Amino acid sequence: MNYSAITYIIGWLLNFEAIFMTLPCLVAAIYGEESGWVFVITIFFCLLLGIPRTVHGLKNKVIQAREGFVTVALGWIIMSIMGAVPFVLSEAIPNWIDAVFETVSGFTTTGASILSDVEILDRCLLFWRSFTHWIGGMGVLVFILSVLPLRGGYHMNLMRAESPGPSVSKLVPRTQSTAKILYGIYIALTLLEILLLLLGGMPVFDALTTSFGTAGTGGFGIKNDSIASYSPYLQNVITIFMILFGVNFNLYFLLLIRKPKQALRSEELRGYLSIIAVTILVITFEISRLYGSIWDALRHASFQVASIITTTGFATTDFNLWPEVPRTTLIMLMFVGACAGSTGGGIKVSRFLILLKSLFKELHQYVHPTAVRKIKLDGRPVEHEVVRSVNVFMVMYILVFSLSVLLVGFDGKDLITNFTAVAATLNNIGPGLELVGPTQNFGGFSDGSKLVLIFDMLAGRLELFPLLMLFHPKTWKRF
Amino acid sequence: MNYSAITYIIGWLLNFEAIFMTLPCLVAAIYGEESGWVFVITIFFCLLLGIPRTVHGLKNKVIQAREGFVTVALGWIIMSIMGAVPFVLSEAIPNWIDAVFETVSGFTTTGASILSDVEILDRCLLFWRSFTHWIGGMGVLVFILSVLPLRGGYHMNLMRAESPGPSVSKLVPRTQSTAKILYGIYIALTLLEILLLLLGGMPVFDALTTSFGTAGTGGFGIKNDSIASYSPYLQNVITIFMILFGVNFNLYFLLLIRKPKQALRSEELRGYLSIIAVTILVITFEISRLYGSIWDALRHASFQVASIITTTGFATTDFNLWPEVPRTTLIMLMFVGACAGSTGGGIKVSRFLILLKSLFKELHQYVHPTAVRKIKLDGRPVEHEVVRSVNVFMVMYILVFSLSVLLVGFDGKDLITNFTAVAATLNNIGPGLELVGPTQNFGGFSDGSKLVLIFDMLAGRLELFPLLMLFHPKTWKRF
Repeated sequence: MNYSAITYIIGWLLNFEAIFMTLPCLVAAIYGEESGWVFVITIFFCLLLGIPRTVHGLKNKVIQAREGFVTVALGWIIMSIMGAVPFVLSEAIPNWIDAVFETVSGFTTTGASILSDVEILDRCLLFWRSFTHWIGGMGVLVFILSVLPLRGGYHMNLMRAESPGPSVSKLVPRTQSTAKILYGIYIALTLLEILLLLLGGMPVFDALTTSFGTAGTGGFGIKNDSIASYSPYLQNVITIFMILFGVNFNLYFLLLIRKPKQALRSEELRGYLSIIAVTILVITFEISRLYGSIWDALRHASFQVASIITTTGFATTDFNLWPEVPRTTLIMLMFVGACAGSTGGGIKVSRFLILLKSLFKELHQYVHPTAVRKIKLDGRPVEHEVVRSVNVFMVMYILVFSLSVLLVGFDGKDLITNFTAVAATLNNIGPGLELVGPTQNFGGFSDGSKLVLIFDMLAGRLELFPLLMLFHPKTWKRF
Repeated sequence: MNYSAITYIIGWLLNFEAIFMTLPCLVAAIYGEESGWVFVITIFFCLLLGIPRTVHGLKNKVIQAREGFVTVALGWIIMSIMGAVPFVLSEAIPNWIDAVFETVSGFTTTGASILSDVEILDRCLLFWRSFTHWIGGMGVLVFILSVLPLRGGYHMNLMRAESPGPSVSKLVPRTQSTAKILYGIYIALTLLEILLLLLGGMPVFDALTTSFGTAGTGGFGIKNDSIASYSPYLQNVITIFMILFGVNFNLYFLLLIRKPKQALRSEELRGYLSIIAVTILVITFEISRLYGSIWDALRHASFQVASIITTTGFATTDFNLWPEVPRTTLIMLMFVGACAGSTGGGIKVSRFLILLKSLFKELHQYVHPTAVRKIKLDGRPVEHEVVRSVNVFMVMYILVFSLSVLLVGFDGKDLITNFTAVAATLNNIGPGLELVGPTQNFGGFSDGSKLVLIFDMLAGRLELFPLLMLFHPKTWKRF
């Protein structure tokens, strides 16, 4: 195990977290908030831990798959703990576990909150809370990769561990350039959303934080009713951008290099948009009598479907009060998730496509026992390794999911609360149903359950492997 | 497609169903019940359809995998429809869909009932209802195989389609002899249970029907409170036999040929017994304050755990009223199911073992990227084909499960009712929670939902493939 590489990269992570925290400092300065000093203190501690480790550079640059997983898992844990410091110091969230829950929820772009009233928070803290979504959305190690003068060709093992989806493809031969392009698209789309929200009359602070929450598919709102009090225009803009941020960013790259046909041929994109269209129709039909007009129903259905399938978690209405079919549909969307290579969580559309295709292949094999057929996605054969890792992912997912539901059950809450609380955290969505519905929060859980849900949020964002590797005894053996 | 072989075997199936129905006729004669005539009429119709097709024998005896699946799927559907005739004719269950639901629930050993009061039924009907469990438990085509003078070596394709578990192994070289041995063990164990129940003072009729329900892991009771009113001794006997019928019958064969060590080495058996032991302990601890003594809690916990994991569905207490952790644990046991090659349903312990082993193999591979390791079960390598088919089974299972929950949701019942109703039928258990809890019944669902649940019961018993094959267009193509 190359420990020096692990601590070197985590050192840089802390330096960058310090840089990120200058933004809430700026916000505190603008609004004249005294609580800004908590960020200054945290920046100091981040640099104190980060600089000594990074100033001398790195000799052994070999990062194997194992180191990649461990670095990403430990990096995210440490980053979250440091990110929680301002909440504790400012006494906005005095309890440490609550503060880490809120920060993990931010970085993993979950958006599940333990706060019952967010409007009393200072603006610098609200800004930091939403900004963690933006940092975590595209992946912070991917960001570091894109700006650090690292060399050696082993970046792929880091990117693979942090990026969502069954397989990671490089857009351009160099991993570092790929990371730069991805972040460029991310920034451009975020700026576009900010602009469109400002044009709709949203205040600057709201436009920034809401766009961060949308871009990272996070879902922290700065109002207690999430997005409900904004105008229909603003809600529709957010709906469209949630859907856009749930698309594989590789497709935007294809648009940039003028290959729109290839982008539109993507089976995952087609599946993703079809699921969205069908579920919006079903839910609109089922909830139409709850709202004044069919258009209001359509707007609420579209917003909630986009919010859940992209695992953002914003809400314009209390969908916990919807009838059973829309509720059940939303629960299923929780698991589907967005596209691979997007900022969204969940199991991902492409994983389901691969699983469905392997199912049809098997049925076909029974009819034609001698036929040999390979699974194809977008016209290219899917490698056996990818199919296997998708299957293993599902097993791990079911295992982590059911164990979490059982453990959270010891709090004595009802089954739907427990089930959807785990679904909402493991898929990085935010709100669930019943006691964790959109008008409720996660503050009612015991500390033990909160730790389970913190684990689920991290496991969901990093797609299980990196976090489970920490518990594999052989990971830590020398060989 | 060899249609003549399909109709030939289904013809024999109807002949045997006629023979089976002579038993309820006898019961009606003993108790002097007039409703016995409905069985005479049904026997007549079974023979009218069956004999013409079977009297001339079969020329083309080639049964490929495809024909095997289709025969089993169609055979079970036709057998269930004919088995429902007595309920309709006697006006015990006048509605056709209800009667088919009850019969499918019987043959698939589910034990889910649409009746709110079973004690008003005539004894011949009660006997037939419980006897369908016994017929369906071991598989009726396996039974026909064991007694019919069929030859040709293609029996395996029938047995594979009807027998539960990821792979079917022959005990002896000839499939027919294997079927005979399995039925021999089945009959012997059933007789032993009848004897032990009689020794405990249970009336003969109750001992017979309860043993049929236990042996097939069915769960139809002849009393409205299921097993609650019987003595603790009788409840404990039933607990033990439920667990015994959930064990792979191959292990009893190993005991018979005096290889007890090999039987006890079975990883599936160890996993199955460990799960039972752990869950009984957890539940006893959690419910101890609900019952007078720890021993009562232990007895109820053991009974309910054995009943749910073996997918029998008997109950001695209303576990719907238990706290959340026992409820959640029982829901998880619903999915685990019994051992492969037993009469129990569910996903099966061996499938989970294979999935877990493939998960650990994958984690190991990340640590040692160059290592080549094969998954082993009971010391023998598990073939790649088996692992793949287990994965495909899981995908199909999740698909059928979620689609069913969504469709049943249109009835507007609560989510836990819908979720556990599908879990209880797809896993062939019987009762679920809330509106389908052990003191409730399935009569409240609409006809549409009942059809969905009928499909789930058949799909669960035949382990999805055969039933889904009926919907694959290529199954019906000539080539």
